[in-house]
Amino acid sequence: MLDDSIRELAQNQAIAIISTVMPKGEVQSQMVWVDADDEHLLVNTVVTHQKARNIARDPRVTVVLVDPTQTRRYAEVRGRVVESVTGPAARAHLDELSMRYMGTPYARETGERVLLKIAPERERPPAGGR
Amino acid sequence: MLDDSIRELAQNQAIAIISTVMPKGEVQSQMVWVDADDEHLLVNTVVTHQKARNIARDPRVTVVLVDPTQTRRYAEVRGRVVESVTGPAARAHLDELSMRYMGTPYARETGERVLLKIAPERERPPAGGR
Repeated sequence: MLDDSIRELAQNQAIAIISTVMPKGEVQSQMVWVDADDEHLLVNTVVTHQKARNIARDPRVTVVLVDPTQTRRYAEVRGRVVESVTGPAARAHLDELSMRYMGTPYARETGERVLLKIAPERERPPAGGR
Repeated sequence: MLDDSIRELAQNQAIAIISTVMPKGEVQSQMVWVDADDEHLLVNTVVTHQKARNIARDPRVTVVLVDPTQTRRYAEVRGRVVESVTGPAARAHLDELSMRYMGTPYARETGERVLLKIAPERERPPAGGR
């Protein structure tokens, strides 16, 4: 199960930074749209992008979620991508994310999408950062 | 040299997330105060904290800087800690950071500080995120 306060952040337009491990062990970090179900953080990307390739090799990811209404407040989730969904379900989920963050379905061209389901292994619930 | 637009973000209260590599290769990410000189990003932490211990073992770090005035705009810097300054200079720098972010010197108790100088190796200048 995902911590309730982290799920709430993830379902309310959190500023999210996902970090993956590059082939030589350094870290790649990018801002992404984020979502959550009861058990997972959900992130949607393009199958050919570097972070998706990193995850295929090493499924460990770390996600920071910053409260957009109070930007010193943040949570950290370290976990693992346990499921990758492609096809129409991934594209539909992108539209859901776009509705939430932008108020409209996703209109731009995009490569093949993948919905990443991240199971938390270590959670730092939201608290004031410094 | 640090990219000018990244330095400008780093000197203007950016929301900064630093990622370090844990002993088993997973990523730790935390929000920090950030600063910059001409060549480096500057981050100030406590010598005994996990991220300082991670850096002592593996100096590679990745820092995301989010524009606090426009939170979809962010930069990514991958680099390496090339110098660690302790003692009074590190404590004085903490007060500078506190003045910038909080408007007052740093009043709380703190363990021994270390000022980390990060040399960029790969920079993604600020752009609108998604």
